[in-house]
Amino acid sequence: MTEEPVTLALARFVAESRWGDVPPPIRHEAARALLNYFGCALGGCQDETIKRALSAFAPYVGAAQATLIGRRERPDALHAALFNAMSANVLDFDDTHLRTMIHPSAPVAAAAFALAELRPVSGEALLHAFVLGVEAACRVGNSVSPGHYARGWHISGTCGVFGAAAAAGKLLGLDAQRMAWALGLAAAQSAGLVEMLGSMGKSLHLGAAARNGLAAALLAEKEFTAAERAIEGERGFARVFGENPDFAAITQGLGETWELAHNAYKPYPCGVVVHPVIDGCLEVRRHYSPQATGRILVKVNPLGVERADRRHPRDGAEAKLSLQHGAAVALIHGSAGVAQFSDAAVADPAVAALRERIEIQSDPAAARDEAFVTLCMKDSMIHAAHVKHALGSVERPMRDADLETKFRALAAAGAPGCDAQRLINAIGSLEGAVDAAAVVRLSASPG
Amino acid sequence: MTEEPVTLALARFVAESRWGDVPPPIRHEAARALLNYFGCALGGCQDETIKRALSAFAPYVGAAQATLIGRRERPDALHAALFNAMSANVLDFDDTHLRTMIHPSAPVAAAAFALAELRPVSGEALLHAFVLGVEAACRVGNSVSPGHYARGWHISGTCGVFGAAAAAGKLLGLDAQRMAWALGLAAAQSAGLVEMLGSMGKSLHLGAAARNGLAAALLAEKEFTAAERAIEGERGFARVFGENPDFAAITQGLGETWELAHNAYKPYPCGVVVHPVIDGCLEVRRHYSPQATGRILVKVNPLGVERADRRHPRDGAEAKLSLQHGAAVALIHGSAGVAQFSDAAVADPAVAALRERIEIQSDPAAARDEAFVTLCMKDSMIHAAHVKHALGSVERPMRDADLETKFRALAAAGAPGCDAQRLINAIGSLEGAVDAAAVVRLSASPG
Repeated sequence: MTEEPVTLALARFVAESRWGDVPPPIRHEAARALLNYFGCALGGCQDETIKRALSAFAPYVGAAQATLIGRRERPDALHAALFNAMSANVLDFDDTHLRTMIHPSAPVAAAAFALAELRPVSGEALLHAFVLGVEAACRVGNSVSPGHYARGWHISGTCGVFGAAAAAGKLLGLDAQRMAWALGLAAAQSAGLVEMLGSMGKSLHLGAAARNGLAAALLAEKEFTAAERAIEGERGFARVFGENPDFAAITQGLGETWELAHNAYKPYPCGVVVHPVIDGCLEVRRHYSPQATGRILVKVNPLGVERADRRHPRDGAEAKLSLQHGAAVALIHGSAGVAQFSDAAVADPAVAALRERIEIQSDPAAARDEAFVTLCMKDSMIHAAHVKHALGSVERPMRDADLETKFRALAAAGAPGCDAQRLINAIGSLEGAVDAAAVVRLSASPG
Repeated sequence: MTEEPVTLALARFVAESRWGDVPPPIRHEAARALLNYFGCALGGCQDETIKRALSAFAPYVGAAQATLIGRRERPDALHAALFNAMSANVLDFDDTHLRTMIHPSAPVAAAAFALAELRPVSGEALLHAFVLGVEAACRVGNSVSPGHYARGWHISGTCGVFGAAAAAGKLLGLDAQRMAWALGLAAAQSAGLVEMLGSMGKSLHLGAAARNGLAAALLAEKEFTAAERAIEGERGFARVFGENPDFAAITQGLGETWELAHNAYKPYPCGVVVHPVIDGCLEVRRHYSPQATGRILVKVNPLGVERADRRHPRDGAEAKLSLQHGAAVALIHGSAGVAQFSDAAVADPAVAALRERIEIQSDPAAARDEAFVTLCMKDSMIHAAHVKHALGSVERPMRDADLETKFRALAAAGAPGCDAQRLINAIGSLEGAVDAAAVVRLSASPG
């Protein structure tokens, strides 16, 4: 018996999967990922990145087909996928598939919901397509990891497009052959460079992945063909974008293991190396006062020091990789949300003064998500916190309540007119919804 | 003195170049390339690839802004760039930058003309932007060649997007900083796999390069930022897509040497290894008759045998890499145009019978664009042709008259309602035209 080619095997799995095959914990994880997706998009939708992209593309958008999360505009579905994925990613607050560092939800959910507004589907169908899209993106990512990202590919873009194509293809009801073409046309458009991180081009990767993946599925539906072995061929995705690709990572255990189980959510909109420090500072904060506190020691893994020992960030973007800034805002504000990583927060004299007082120490024995924070009081008292695992890590995941808190803060920051609770409820009951698109319509700005 | 970073240096050159700096032979070559571009797009515009793409994207197109060459639809400028570049490439009949194998004109011209319909510019400005776009695409390609294509990148897609961005950015009047962002956003969207050759995905690469390059320039105009060292950075285009990139190939001799000087045009819509065989068969054809001719010998370089010794092509696509088919149609039809590489021509019993009679020989002493064709007549006469250099090679380029003949044949095949002579005249006098877009409007189907 010859084994089915990799691209076709993945396509067949996506095309033939049934909702009943998806275990309840994965269904629940899909709802959690979507809650996080909508929250991030609501928080990011007023970012300058989105405004400039909207302004550049405005003359070229088509019929009013789909919602922009948190906004009033209604562009065509392809542009909606582009903008919503960018909004969800722009704050660096979206989810992370830990093995690959893919941010899977932004491209997959943006493509699926844009299509759902044009061609009505049930909430169950939407969740199913979303689970399969994440599965496709992360399995393709697994096959080329870790070399692919290390070389300089922005894996959320290069692999996100496969996820968007798979999710859209599932909603379109593509058969295995057409689904294989959709994945192939995703490969044909796969793009993104790590060099763009820190510029607006970073979020364009996610937006393009959503739009191009959706387009790949729409083209495949019309029998626009792609290479039959687009992923595994001699000049296909995996060999060209990777070294010694692991094809079994794509095909083994399909339907038995689920990549959504390895998805993590950030409690703070900054680099993960800063997270345990924020946790520790929030823990000792009740003892902090500018007058009574002397030395402030922060001890982390050497990687954290290498990446984020940055006492003088110039703006919000740089502050996201500053241990000193994360510690300072947590101690002063008692929170570390989007507002705490704004340019204004960076320029705040009180925060700047406190950044000067944070002493960073490197501890090779510390784990990457571990931190020790010590406040030495002027009266010789010491208040210490030991964070074994940062909130949002595998060992200490964000609870549903944490995700709702995060959602509310993001909605309040980016889309204050949005009825956050109603949207939380709608996402939570999506599986029983007759029309999946009702959820995304709720996320539009009412103004 | 520190040298200017590569991306910025290329951007500055494009932004600050003046038409007066472009030497007359390069100006003339630009007009030749555009004549070939329009001819290829007219010939390809009814291809099934284009029809399926149009059908898939139809629900999402925006305002009627720009012409589709040879067709009646008028989509928004971004979609026009996409479809026109696909039309120009789909027959594999467009131009080739010989050092890199980039097909430069399709993405560059499609982006430039789509923009010219929205924001009127002179013919001179259009030609200038086109020259600079080809320059940018081919110089970026030079920096990563030959390893880039050899690894499996479809270089016309991966580098074409830089050309489209540069040309569109020039028409938009971007300054050096914005032009650098445009090139950076091109890098962020650079895509295309050799694996797609033989499928419709191949032409999607060129279409996406045109659309995404145009979008990159439009985004940069609105100060949507990209990485400052998008091409030369540690995780930038050249190092990620190439091995040991040659940055001097991008920056040295800017404004002194011009890549358009190394652009070639195909006389026949098939693989270049087949071209000298067609030339030879056309030369001896007057002696050929099915009854009087005995053995037919074709001798070419071993590469030609390896790539194209294909006696039984299954369809038009395979026939493009069949020495036997090329020889047979040239002998029977006295021409080798689009019709001779159709599925119908492949299935023609007379052509199939003649393919059986062509004897292929390998000659290591023959150059790649050389062929020997010998007709052995039953009366013992021998008629031989020795093609030292195929038509369309560097040593024997297509003359202006050859390009016009090619144009007329393509226009007649794909867009019989088009006034070919009027369009030839308009392209020839583009440099003096007040409104460059008038040319592309002439290319629309009048029906």
